[in-house]
Amino acid sequence: MEVGIVFGGKSYEHEISIVSAIALKKVLTCKLIYIFCDANREFYLIPAESINAKRFSDGSYKKDPKLTLEQGGFTCKGLFGSKKIFCDVVLNLIHGADGEDGKLAGLFSFFGVPFIGPRLEASVLSYSKLWTKHLAEACGVKTLPYELLTPQQRTPSLAYPLIIKPLRLGSSIGVSVVRSEKTLEYALDVAFEYDDTVIVEPFVEGVREYNLAGCFTTQGVEFSIIEAPQKGELLDFDKKYLDFSRTATVSKAILEPSEEKCLKEAFEALYMPLFQGALIRCDFFMVKGEVVLNEINPNPGSMANYLFQDFDGLVHRLAKALPAPKEATVSYQYIHSIHAAKGKL
Amino acid sequence: MEVGIVFGGKSYEHEISIVSAIALKKVLTCKLIYIFCDANREFYLIPAESINAKRFSDGSYKKDPKLTLEQGGFTCKGLFGSKKIFCDVVLNLIHGADGEDGKLAGLFSFFGVPFIGPRLEASVLSYSKLWTKHLAEACGVKTLPYELLTPQQRTPSLAYPLIIKPLRLGSSIGVSVVRSEKTLEYALDVAFEYDDTVIVEPFVEGVREYNLAGCFTTQGVEFSIIEAPQKGELLDFDKKYLDFSRTATVSKAILEPSEEKCLKEAFEALYMPLFQGALIRCDFFMVKGEVVLNEINPNPGSMANYLFQDFDGLVHRLAKALPAPKEATVSYQYIHSIHAAKGKL
Repeated sequence: MEVGIVFGGKSYEHEISIVSAIALKKVLTCKLIYIFCDANREFYLIPAESINAKRFSDGSYKKDPKLTLEQGGFTCKGLFGSKKIFCDVVLNLIHGADGEDGKLAGLFSFFGVPFIGPRLEASVLSYSKLWTKHLAEACGVKTLPYELLTPQQRTPSLAYPLIIKPLRLGSSIGVSVVRSEKTLEYALDVAFEYDDTVIVEPFVEGVREYNLAGCFTTQGVEFSIIEAPQKGELLDFDKKYLDFSRTATVSKAILEPSEEKCLKEAFEALYMPLFQGALIRCDFFMVKGEVVLNEINPNPGSMANYLFQDFDGLVHRLAKALPAPKEATVSYQYIHSIHAAKGKL
Repeated sequence: MEVGIVFGGKSYEHEISIVSAIALKKVLTCKLIYIFCDANREFYLIPAESINAKRFSDGSYKKDPKLTLEQGGFTCKGLFGSKKIFCDVVLNLIHGADGEDGKLAGLFSFFGVPFIGPRLEASVLSYSKLWTKHLAEACGVKTLPYELLTPQQRTPSLAYPLIIKPLRLGSSIGVSVVRSEKTLEYALDVAFEYDDTVIVEPFVEGVREYNLAGCFTTQGVEFSIIEAPQKGELLDFDKKYLDFSRTATVSKAILEPSEEKCLKEAFEALYMPLFQGALIRCDFFMVKGEVVLNEINPNPGSMANYLFQDFDGLVHRLAKALPAPKEATVSYQYIHSIHAAKGKL
């Protein structure tokens, strides 16, 4: 199998996408075709053998062949016409904007490119923390109470401590824990730099957090092990950046079998059928014995490979179980019938 | 101003998009550049002077120049390189799939093409009748009660008469009014041909319906006149098809000033800021003096031009008030700092 890794993107998480992409080289045995999307949203074919972070930061990727997206996939223009870049499937590894907001899903769906990653509806719903709440509600999964703030309405009514997040970003960018009114203004200023809407939730001190990844494959829904991430109050961007290069498997969280069952049921309720085609990671809290969704990562860092025993096999089985696009048929029956009845339109 | 009209699409409403596009020629005075998206999702430049429905139904458009979408817009490849097709703005006039499901919004956002039409989030939320309900709830606008059916769960619990709709299509395709259990099975079979989820609502006999279109322009939110559509139980596809070619203005519905105010307030609550950049039509019911949203048409037939006194001016003012894309900035600060600290990654 030949897998195209699409990474980069015009995103605040551009760099961690590069790190994710390089990490995958260590855990996937199939042939990888690296397709870089630069900050100008131009695509380049990066030789897998010489991929390294510096190639992107110093701009030397610009000497690599430029690609165009056409019906059926990426092509490379040369002196003697276009050459198709063959991939059995492409893997959307762009984090944040472009990759998780639906742009890439729209592109790949439109151009008929088979891809691993969230589809359009799944992208838009999980990209916004507001619509994630609505999605969870529709799936019968609890979330924390919340309120939305805007530059015009900056006064929360929830009690401190609070956690303040830009409505539409991942990777902890612009996120703050606010313990009193004193630090509220600064935290809001930071968050509003990234979005014109901010979501506020209660910050639950010492809450147990569990990360569970999975996807629908030829074997049904396959789950990762459940990790209880070891971290401080918040993973800051620096730590998260390093976290995205993880390839060593982690140890399993200690959970009652009933708790593990509840987490997996919540995951499946959220995942099916909306996220078919994607490998997602759900971050849950366990509050008073109840599963509470914190967030959905539809393109988790380095595909959460470290949570799976057989990541390589999983990606193969996922690639063989992509949802068939629901395509409309086009007919001209009305134009034909009107022509027959009335002459030319 | 030069306006690109993008129409067609791999959609059940492909034909009515063609009719919409031809209708616009009569109501827009600016230079129109017709860009056809065929059933294979290839783009063609159609000469405006010789556009007619037959050109598409008999396949003769295939002799017209083929276009490629690249950063910044459409280009036409010739013997001596690529030529950019200049448009100040493109107008997304594809109805249903491709145009209203977010694919075109994703494409135009990714390739940096200024466009009139719903953005990604607005597309996905209004394309699904379930997420439209959630959107309306979040905006404080009422909708009818509903339930979802699937091929596995075909028994509604709401009382007859019911209206049954595929979850994600427009233009009355697959929609039936069901007055008793006798016709339920057939109606469900029809609806499930178009979607794997069906939404069921009470059918309100003799309800007053009002259509209101509008958009955010350089002058703020501009509203159309409010129309009380004259129709039978349901506009069937044939009638709706003809309806899409409308260019004559209609007469205003007779409404109390307080009712008109309520309809406009509901429209603005739904529209701002999500639908900025699009000219949408909201179809409301008035039930016991309360405004109830029926559906949102983010690309209404022939842009609902017949509801506006000065449609031509409106499109100009809308084109000048498109929302600025919220673009992330890309930096390499972490890669640079890690390099400085650790040598090569």
